[in-house]
Amino acid sequence: MSQKLAIGKLAILLASLSEEELAGFRPALQEVKYCQGKVGSMNMQKVISAVETAAKRNELIQDHLYRETHSLYHAILEGIEGVTRGKPAIGEMSRTVGLRFAIVRGRPYNEPQEGEWIAVAFYGTIGAPVKGAEHETVGLGINHI
Amino acid sequence: MSQKLAIGKLAILLASLSEEELAGFRPALQEVKYCQGKVGSMNMQKVISAVETAAKRNELIQDHLYRETHSLYHAILEGIEGVTRGKPAIGEMSRTVGLRFAIVRGRPYNEPQEGEWIAVAFYGTIGAPVKGAEHETVGLGINHI
Amino acid sequence: MSQKLAIGKLAILLASLSEEELAGFRPALQEVKYCQGKVGSMNMQKVISAVETAAKRNELIQDHLYRETHSLYHAILEGIEGVTRGKPAIGEMSRTVGLRFAIVRGRPYNEPQEGEWIAVAFYGTIGAPVKGAEHETVGLGINHI
Amino acid sequence: MSQKLAIGKLAILLASLSEEELAGFRPALQEVKYCQGKVGSMNMQKVISAVETAAKRNELIQDHLYRETHSLYHAILEGIEGVTRGKPAIGEMSRTVGLRFAIVRGRPYNEPQEGEWIAVAFYGTIGAPVKGAEHETVGLGINHI
Amino acid sequence: MSQKLAIGKLAILLASLSEEELAGFRPALQEVKYCQGKVGSMNMQKVISAVETAAKRNELIQDHLYRETHSLYHAILEGIEGVTRGKPAIGEMSRTVGLRFAIVRGRPYNEPQEGEWIAVAFYGTIGAPVKGAEHETVGLGINHI
Amino acid sequence: MSQKLAIGKLAILLASLSEEELAGFRPALQEVKYCQGKVGSMNMQKVISAVETAAKRNELIQDHLYRETHSLYHAILEGIEGVTRGKPAIGEMSRTVGLRFAIVRGRPYNEPQEGEWIAVAFYGTIGAPVKGAEHETVGLGINHI
Repeated sequence: MSQKLAIGKLAILLASLSEEELAGFRPALQEVKYCQGKVGSMNMQKVISAVETAAKRNELIQDHLYRETHSLYHAILEGIEGVTRGKPAIGEMSRTVGLRFAIVRGRPYNEPQEGEWIAVAFYGTIGAPVKGAEHETVGLGINHI
Repeated sequence: MSQKLAIGKLAILLASLSEEELAGFRPALQEVKYCQGKVGSMNMQKVISAVETAAKRNELIQDHLYRETHSLYHAILEGIEGVTRGKPAIGEMSRTVGLRFAIVRGRPYNEPQEGEWIAVAFYGTIGAPVKGAEHETVGLGINHI
Repeated sequence: MSQKLAIGKLAILLASLSEEELAGFRPALQEVKYCQGKVGSMNMQKVISAVETAAKRNELIQDHLYRETHSLYHAILEGIEGVTRGKPAIGEMSRTVGLRFAIVRGRPYNEPQEGEWIAVAFYGTIGAPVKGAEHETVGLGINHI
Repeated sequence: MSQKLAIGKLAILLASLSEEELAGFRPALQEVKYCQGKVGSMNMQKVISAVETAAKRNELIQDHLYRETHSLYHAILEGIEGVTRGKPAIGEMSRTVGLRFAIVRGRPYNEPQEGEWIAVAFYGTIGAPVKGAEHETVGLGINHI
Repeated sequence: MSQKLAIGKLAILLASLSEEELAGFRPALQEVKYCQGKVGSMNMQKVISAVETAAKRNELIQDHLYRETHSLYHAILEGIEGVTRGKPAIGEMSRTVGLRFAIVRGRPYNEPQEGEWIAVAFYGTIGAPVKGAEHETVGLGINHI
Repeated sequence: MSQKLAIGKLAILLASLSEEELAGFRPALQEVKYCQGKVGSMNMQKVISAVETAAKRNELIQDHLYRETHSLYHAILEGIEGVTRGKPAIGEMSRTVGLRFAIVRGRPYNEPQEGEWIAVAFYGTIGAPVKGAEHETVGLGINHI
């Protein structure tokens, strides 16, 4: 069960690096399916929806299968745990997020039977709903799909 | 209060990239103090201690000031929230972690009065206490110091 | 302090079985007070209200006593922990529930001094706000009253 | 994506009913793979291990696939959330559990592509480490596998 | 249901004030049953036990009734939530507590039917297992009994 | 690092005592900056805002520094953990709070280098959105500033 492909690391890099900084990682990115997106909100539901919509539009998951929706949903929630660090709320806690996100789908393990996995990464800022009153935040969720 | 230096991103990169991959980020790293370390354990207390010890040994914090210990401690705990995604336990939950970590101390904001902040990042694996039965995990905590 | 009556089990069965399936449990149900209800919502407050209203309307608790409201409220919250599994939110997390619930009040212990206890059980589905994209969920809360 | 088989309900019934009470549910049980077990402990790790061991011994999951271990692990943790209601700890919180559990693997949805899912249910008691000072508790976790 | 006696406030004062500072509150204390204690530990179970033992020894609860043990237990856990602020762990989180506590039992409401309630308060320090590297902490739990 | 001034205790007393009861604590209050306020709401965001606004209006923090806003914000959230005891939600959980609060800023430690710290205390009631159906609650958060 050794890992050959770090889909989580790729997701984090896709979410946090500039196009230029990503250049060196293009070869590894060719081995996975991925998409990137952005969302800024005080509303957690909007953050979740933004990732789900991007995943469906870019065919990272099969829209009509609950199985895949379920896998993605839990990966998103795990990523949000990192972003919100223990209190999965944004607006209710009087804070706002400005996030870039990336979804990566691939085969991280050598054994073909381990199949596909999905990684959802967030990188951006969290803070008071006042411009500049914010600091960085990161989250990563991974699930079998 | 605009941000000039992404200490969180630097910490994540220090924790997840190889020496070679880090080459392009050396200029930015010159503007901060940082250290790197490794810890593998089923015991959360050991993970916390490993980071605290590295921070003190590398003079990222002033050992004799509780103020700085307190700041670092909360940054570590926030990073662990991302690693453990909502259930801050490892061994009690029958799982183990193998982590690289980085601590970055610097001045992320343009205003000199915003002073120094500290970032603690983790990157590695979490999983069953069986070789290979694990996936990637990431965490980031940030605090004013 | 040995238990003679499993009010929690009865509550779970009342919430999850059909009328027909419940037939064999009618004798045990004669030893307790109970009521059943249904609620579907993305709003946790509505779920809580539905149970509280059913309890009052069916005289499972004495409406004018805060003591009994307090006991029921904590039993409901504990049941919701099982339903939501660690993140007590529904709509904010972009998910919806369709639940049957049951409230059982009785004397589970042999010792008369142990008095009355209340059980609140939920059974139904939780999932995306899309028909069919959901799986089963269960929760049980128990409190002294 | 309509549901044809309630694997969660079957798991709860397997964990909470007597052999005799289960009689009426035998036909439905023929459509799934399942096993039952028991565990009493103040140690969460032992509870998790007991379920994992039963799943492997009874071939509910393929031991050598991390993918299946991962799916089961998260289903167990979700079940434990219901059992412990919001504070996933037992001994550290000075309480002990005596649980029966059941694992059910099957195809809950009509669409063949939705594939197999796994349900882990717990039923038993939680309380002070003193005989009789305890009340009932229930938990259910469900995951795609 | 108006409140006539603030058992929570009395518990907090008993836990945090010196004998001398408490002088002015003696009349109110005559209307309730209470006891005080101390506990220092990295082990949550010891903190819980210390309060339970004090409650039994001072006859704040009836030892042989699970009903009363159950009520006290949940009041203790709620108090610990305040002390640990969101992560109910001490040693696992590499921190230690030094606490004074008080248990107050009385009738806070005007209506006789509201009966007795119990309050558990903690006041002291929480911090690194290093002398002086700590700050104050407070917690209060209240339950019907 | 011994403590000379209990800013947490002062905050709790400011939040819970009457003017008259506070008389004996006036000398200690002269050594710190503080303010008091009140807020009643089912909306957590309003509770947070009330404290932030009071802190700024009374110059307990420097409004234009994110550093100080960040420190205060985390102290508020920690205080709310005590108030809500493990589930940082109010209205979503169908409950309401009526709180007095106090913010204290001072130098709790003997060593001048330990600098200033901030304490946020809450005292009041939490309960159903029905007059009188409520009990007392307390919370305290402390942070370096």
